[in-house]
Amino acid sequence: MSGLKMPALDQDVLSRRTQIVASLSRIVPGEGVVSNEHEMRVFESDGLTAYKALPFIVVLPETVQQVADVLKYCHGENIKVVPRGSGTSLSGGALPLEDAVLLVMSRFNRMLEIDYPNRCAVVQPGVTNLGITTAVEGEGFYYAPDPSSQIACSIGGNVAENSGGVHSLKYGLTANNVLGVELVTIEGEIIRLGGKYLEADGYDLLGVITGSEGLLGVVTEVTVRILQSPETARALLVGFPSSEDGGQCVADIISQGIIPGGMEMMDRPAIHAAEDFVRAGYPLDVEALLIVELDGPEAEVDYLIGRVEKIAKQNKSSTLRISTNEEERRSFWAGRKAAFPAVGRISPDYYCMDGTIPRKQLPKVLARMRELSEQYDLRVANVFHAGDGNLHPLILYDANIPGQLEKTEEFGADILRLCVEVGGVLTGEHGVGVEKRDLMPEMFTEDDLKQQQRVKCAFDEKHLLNPGKVFPQLHRCAELGRMHVHKGNVQFPDLPRF
Amino acid sequence: MSGLKMPALDQDVLSRRTQIVASLSRIVPGEGVVSNEHEMRVFESDGLTAYKALPFIVVLPETVQQVADVLKYCHGENIKVVPRGSGTSLSGGALPLEDAVLLVMSRFNRMLEIDYPNRCAVVQPGVTNLGITTAVEGEGFYYAPDPSSQIACSIGGNVAENSGGVHSLKYGLTANNVLGVELVTIEGEIIRLGGKYLEADGYDLLGVITGSEGLLGVVTEVTVRILQSPETARALLVGFPSSEDGGQCVADIISQGIIPGGMEMMDRPAIHAAEDFVRAGYPLDVEALLIVELDGPEAEVDYLIGRVEKIAKQNKSSTLRISTNEEERRSFWAGRKAAFPAVGRISPDYYCMDGTIPRKQLPKVLARMRELSEQYDLRVANVFHAGDGNLHPLILYDANIPGQLEKTEEFGADILRLCVEVGGVLTGEHGVGVEKRDLMPEMFTEDDLKQQQRVKCAFDEKHLLNPGKVFPQLHRCAELGRMHVHKGNVQFPDLPRF
Repeated sequence: MSGLKMPALDQDVLSRRTQIVASLSRIVPGEGVVSNEHEMRVFESDGLTAYKALPFIVVLPETVQQVADVLKYCHGENIKVVPRGSGTSLSGGALPLEDAVLLVMSRFNRMLEIDYPNRCAVVQPGVTNLGITTAVEGEGFYYAPDPSSQIACSIGGNVAENSGGVHSLKYGLTANNVLGVELVTIEGEIIRLGGKYLEADGYDLLGVITGSEGLLGVVTEVTVRILQSPETARALLVGFPSSEDGGQCVADIISQGIIPGGMEMMDRPAIHAAEDFVRAGYPLDVEALLIVELDGPEAEVDYLIGRVEKIAKQNKSSTLRISTNEEERRSFWAGRKAAFPAVGRISPDYYCMDGTIPRKQLPKVLARMRELSEQYDLRVANVFHAGDGNLHPLILYDANIPGQLEKTEEFGADILRLCVEVGGVLTGEHGVGVEKRDLMPEMFTEDDLKQQQRVKCAFDEKHLLNPGKVFPQLHRCAELGRMHVHKGNVQFPDLPRF
Repeated sequence: MSGLKMPALDQDVLSRRTQIVASLSRIVPGEGVVSNEHEMRVFESDGLTAYKALPFIVVLPETVQQVADVLKYCHGENIKVVPRGSGTSLSGGALPLEDAVLLVMSRFNRMLEIDYPNRCAVVQPGVTNLGITTAVEGEGFYYAPDPSSQIACSIGGNVAENSGGVHSLKYGLTANNVLGVELVTIEGEIIRLGGKYLEADGYDLLGVITGSEGLLGVVTEVTVRILQSPETARALLVGFPSSEDGGQCVADIISQGIIPGGMEMMDRPAIHAAEDFVRAGYPLDVEALLIVELDGPEAEVDYLIGRVEKIAKQNKSSTLRISTNEEERRSFWAGRKAAFPAVGRISPDYYCMDGTIPRKQLPKVLARMRELSEQYDLRVANVFHAGDGNLHPLILYDANIPGQLEKTEEFGADILRLCVEVGGVLTGEHGVGVEKRDLMPEMFTEDDLKQQQRVKCAFDEKHLLNPGKVFPQLHRCAELGRMHVHKGNVQFPDLPRF
């Protein structure tokens, strides 16, 4: 596992395996508990395939009560628990631990309610992201955040990672589209946060849960906003002689108050890989390719297309096409959407990074990344949510060459350090997981991390939920104060009174 | 009417009065049409009592269809219409015109639905602002925007003026709390904008309607958000040796990220008038008095009270009390809430202004206002929503002294010019109406005003709805382009295609 240090194995728990399997089988009968190595092997990694570990025991509950009983049992017996949705995390958020129950939520796959008048849907966490849109698109609605993995990734996992996508520039991340959740704490308490309305009262625990990477509880129901599909959408495909020009064009579009439905950029290696793979008709003689999609009422879209065209030309665009129909618009996107597998064709392995920077730093970061690429002798293809400043550099490597994974990890760490150095952050939408865990001190002070862990302690004092993820070092909760979440409220036994 | 120039009377319409009364009586039978001078006299002014005019005819519809039929009839016959809620406007928004039907919405006084799970209420426009809170407070909810006139003012009028209140600093103006409306256009079309969800699709016509001062249509139903009452609320009553210190304290509180539920300031004349009237226990040896209310979970409120106390002391507060119970908290507010009638006791008449400035300009504006007060030889008492930078200077005058109203108007105009000069705006929550109409060019260029009128034209090409309000001069719609609202959508027959 490439030297990744995980928490020490709990030998006591390991020694009681037979008894634990029997107890869990009583809570989740039938085929709900998987304990033989062969069957557990499919769960040994998530989307960050560089890391693998065999789970201790796999449990697949079907009811909220089963989830509560499993967690309560594990809490009582001091057994670690790793929650897992569809296992598409790119930061190792669902990476199993050899002494932890892997709680797989895939059986929670039902749409519970679609409430069109209130523009929301109540779904179980195992429903796929695209499944929500599929369920409502007949009525002219959709669910906005759209990760690349949307065919497979679960909405519960989206909540855990605060996932984004191409549409997040205009429509927000998961946090902006989730109205409520039902959550089970490690103590087995079932609490509800938020509802069908936008803002909850008191502490924003819903905001705390979204993006908490499985460290605070297990989501068993999600209420999401659904949006009416835009009247029309058109896209521009713009090539630039340099990444600097493309980056400046992105900055100019945003600074003029235009918020495209999507604004994506690819660099030369990504353009060539995509074009070789899907023949999207991308220009091959450009250094950067920008896809800008405008959506909304037709008159507005037409007007904005004109403005973006003008801005692109002012930024020395060398090629520019505007989609004239739906088929053409889709063809502009085809290459972008296939970029990851396309890169997979030109390299035995690739490592997808995820950092976010202020938009204006784009040219500097791309230049520095080219230098690092030469220094590490590893190729990089860049695909990014340009409007958000969210970079996805794909580092191309070969895991079969000894030392290349390690070198790739170092290169990736340098890229993330660079992101933080220019005023950005470690992650845009993939989460910290195990991948960026040890880089947390690059961004946060010891006091910051302690404050974050106070929240963790309020939910999970024993550090049983998803340990080894997000935090490079876990502090004992007793040292951090006794804030505690109970019945969906925060209690502060230690807070000084004024 | 103090020289206020209103649109020329339509002699043709005036000559057809008998016939028009008969036609309107067929649409709204029974006592729905009031046409004798004596009964119409009660409608001759609104909250801006300096201006008066007898309506042409008063109509009090009871159903949406009647509203639609009245408007359609008036549109066909080229008769002007002035919509009116409870008539509490402080900018003359509901001031009648002698050749315009006054459409009084007071019979629309029913709560239609209270939807607790979705945290909203559907109400008729004549329901009072406080009536909504009264209807839901038993379940622990309230409607946030709280104008001083909340006992009397109607929610329809709140939508027309985008009304605010003490709570607007934290919870927003009407625009932030209205989710949907049913609207009747001057053509008699009944359209729905928004719904129970927060964001509408396409053009934000709901945002256009909120604050449109009766110029775009007549609201016949309103869906508002209701919020759960905060767990606790506590207030600080802080005196300062100078307005500058009080103003700096306000700026420091906001700049430290604290958003009080309310943050109100009064100057020496207002403090003395209020204390003489209600004996709230206000200190009389201070130049500025600040009331800061914190609301939310108890632990958070306690913590924030401590921080605000510290900031107040750093800003040389000379007296400081913290409410220890609900009764004490209410007593802090008693003087502020009675400030207007209290000022009414010390002067035969007063003129309540409404301008908004950047918070940091407060000391400069107060100093300049003192100079203007001496120059015009008119006293001013200041009561303001300090957190928002929304000033309510009360100019004290005597309407029976010839020339004093005119002098007061000039003084008021100078105050508003000052607000714009320091980077502020002409109104915070009272609207433009007739009061600030002629000052619009101080803030907006001719192009700005034309652009605003394009929106007006899209709804009311004939300029029949509430003419003489808001715009100092009306342009012919034919000159401005043919954008038109139909079926709740905007159509652009003239827009160039790209």
